[in-house]
Amino acid sequence: MTAFPDPELGEPYLLTPGPLTTSAEVKQAMLRDWGSWDGDFRAMTAEVRRRLLEIAGDTAGAYDCVPLQGSGSYCVEAMLGSFVPRDGKVLVLANGAYGLRAAETMRYLGRAFTLIDKGDYLPPRGAEVAQALAADPAITHVLAIHCETSSGILNPIPEIAEATAQAGRKLLIDSMSAFGAVPLDVRDLQVEAFVSSANKCIEGVPGFGFVIARKETLAGAKGNSHSLALDLHAQWATMEKTGQWRYTPPTHVVAAFVKALEMHRAEGGAPARLARYTRNRDTMVAGMRALGFETLLADSWLSPIIVTFFCPADPAFAFPRFYELMKDRGFIIYPGKLTVVDSFRIGCIGRMDDTVMNRVVTAAQQSLADMGVASAVPPASALAERANLAA
Amino acid sequence: MTAFPDPELGEPYLLTPGPLTTSAEVKQAMLRDWGSWDGDFRAMTAEVRRRLLEIAGDTAGAYDCVPLQGSGSYCVEAMLGSFVPRDGKVLVLANGAYGLRAAETMRYLGRAFTLIDKGDYLPPRGAEVAQALAADPAITHVLAIHCETSSGILNPIPEIAEATAQAGRKLLIDSMSAFGAVPLDVRDLQVEAFVSSANKCIEGVPGFGFVIARKETLAGAKGNSHSLALDLHAQWATMEKTGQWRYTPPTHVVAAFVKALEMHRAEGGAPARLARYTRNRDTMVAGMRALGFETLLADSWLSPIIVTFFCPADPAFAFPRFYELMKDRGFIIYPGKLTVVDSFRIGCIGRMDDTVMNRVVTAAQQSLADMGVASAVPPASALAERANLAA
Ligand SMILES: Cc1ncc(COP(=O)(O)O)c(C=O)c1O
Ligand SMILES: Cc1ncc(COP(=O)(O)O)c(C=O)c1O
Repeated sequence: MTAFPDPELGEPYLLTPGPLTTSAEVKQAMLRDWGSWDGDFRAMTAEVRRRLLEIAGDTAGAYDCVPLQGSGSYCVEAMLGSFVPRDGKVLVLANGAYGLRAAETMRYLGRAFTLIDKGDYLPPRGAEVAQALAADPAITHVLAIHCETSSGILNPIPEIAEATAQAGRKLLIDSMSAFGAVPLDVRDLQVEAFVSSANKCIEGVPGFGFVIARKETLAGAKGNSHSLALDLHAQWATMEKTGQWRYTPPTHVVAAFVKALEMHRAEGGAPARLARYTRNRDTMVAGMRALGFETLLADSWLSPIIVTFFCPADPAFAFPRFYELMKDRGFIIYPGKLTVVDSFRIGCIGRMDDTVMNRVVTAAQQSLADMGVASAVPPASALAERANLAA
Repeated sequence: MTAFPDPELGEPYLLTPGPLTTSAEVKQAMLRDWGSWDGDFRAMTAEVRRRLLEIAGDTAGAYDCVPLQGSGSYCVEAMLGSFVPRDGKVLVLANGAYGLRAAETMRYLGRAFTLIDKGDYLPPRGAEVAQALAADPAITHVLAIHCETSSGILNPIPEIAEATAQAGRKLLIDSMSAFGAVPLDVRDLQVEAFVSSANKCIEGVPGFGFVIARKETLAGAKGNSHSLALDLHAQWATMEKTGQWRYTPPTHVVAAFVKALEMHRAEGGAPARLARYTRNRDTMVAGMRALGFETLLADSWLSPIIVTFFCPADPAFAFPRFYELMKDRGFIIYPGKLTVVDSFRIGCIGRMDDTVMNRVVTAAQQSLADMGVASAVPPASALAERANLAA
């Protein structure tokens, strides 16, 4: 593996799950212009689709991959608008911002949905999904978030998939921040469709997302979408027929993604990436805990994608100052998304390894010292909150 | 101005109006990663919005600029979905693929519209707009295409704007391929909103577009959009409040655009760009005509953006082969979009000047010779078609 970027060169590491730190090679792939109509670019599009299906484990050729211009949220909306029939009904499983955004999308679409809202971080479980589906035969689809990036929890997709399949309903997954590292294999899971984006675990730059869906679902989606731009059937049909994107693609971003896929494979594919991110997380979490920080989640629920820490109780701690001190040391971190207690987040994905994560911990220690924070221990209220979640 | 790229370095010129050939500086601006939440990136977003409003002539501060992830078509859909009330009605003026796409967008939205379809290239005129508006008081908005890139015609926006304002209706413009070079100044034109994209006359790379709209229109659009992702009110409100894009922005593409705007200004702004593109067109058209080629449009309707030529009548001419021969010589051209006669298109925008255009003409001459085409004169049927359009 080539060298990781060095923040001493003036560019901070992005400890944020998208945009994230990408390799120099990926960015250098953007140094030329491509005609989107040209055969060379069409070959790149075909390669992207083929490789993503490979990562998804589609050996049977039952699925297809449709890249779509825009951010990841566009893909979630496109999936819901294209695959949920106008008289369908979706059970949305929410435990954070992205689940709630999917529910908000359903509200815009004006199609029926029920929301199971577990609050800031409690996981939706298979049993409650089974119960909700048994209670409401009108529900046609279940929408689950794979890694809910707002808390960093890895939701129990296998048991949700099981409950959904048992009840004969269709599963849609927002695997934005997980696919490409956390296992999501269509041979193991009964899934109708899922989405992810260019700048998460594949480590490309942002500018498009993609939907992986059953071919029959794509073929059957004609006339279903509320939006021309977000019509996955139309995007798919054009790509199948011409090899081109319907509208101008982000050509440079696509070229970067081809390189990112090449590096993903060279590293050893999703298993190797999962191993690196897991090492990143374990190194970082152990170091932060040694400083007195506490994670929101118990170990069994921690994703290898991003981790939420409680802010220290010490009144000398202020997140905006901590952010700037960390940035000065070459690390950009994220504010928390919890509604009840103060928190912040540190991402584990992107072009970095555990050496970098050790430096993150050192930077956190120095930043606390600069602020005059004696202890990183969170307030008792935060720990009480955490007690809600059984391991 | 820095040197233009050289196709002898292995990269062909894109004589296609998006993606187009961009400067090395613009592409080099993509060589670093930006955190979208970070202050540095928010400053870039603010700069983009401010500069675009400046180019639009918004000295009174009556307008605002909302960048939106996705391709240009997403912005057209977002403008229609956000600004046309659910009980509004749009008069769509079409004379090519992009006008028809706007009509198709209205069909998806399920909102009322009337279409004036002038066929492949005839311009919609002020008088017929006035007549249509007088005949149908339900029409609330008129949608016009500035440069209809499918034929290359520069539509008569001033007379359309005049007729629309006279009738007390609101004008929406798709100025995708024109803004930044062809004049579009909110001080001269009564316009409600218009859209363009990053990789047209500003010469950025593709990945987002932008809408420039009256502030009161943006403020009044709440709850109107059919789509969460394409809701311009929500995108605008978030940007106003936080300085951030609602969802992950294409950070590298935005950084490239900041550089493109800087180069746009350094060149002398829209007037200088118009002058360069006009020189490009005049040089190229004169050279092609000297080879026997004929343009679809009379000089008075030719845009400085892209020009449609008839294919030669000579049976030795075949467009796919001509395309490959031109590509081998370093120039990527476009197929035509006329439905009635065979044609092809050559773009005049992007990082190139009249020296390059002279080489394009030489390449066309050599390619004809390679194919054994003795004369580039089009068939009589093509010239008869052209006679429909008065200068
Ligand atoms: C789980 C999940 N869903 C959706 C999104 C939204 O993606 P985007 O910001 O690209 O629209 C994200 C972004 O981090 C995410 O993590
Ligand atoms: C006038 C006009 N409108 C709309 C579009 C569509 O833009 P995009 O391909 O970025 O969706 C184009 C693209 O060339 C255009 O020229």
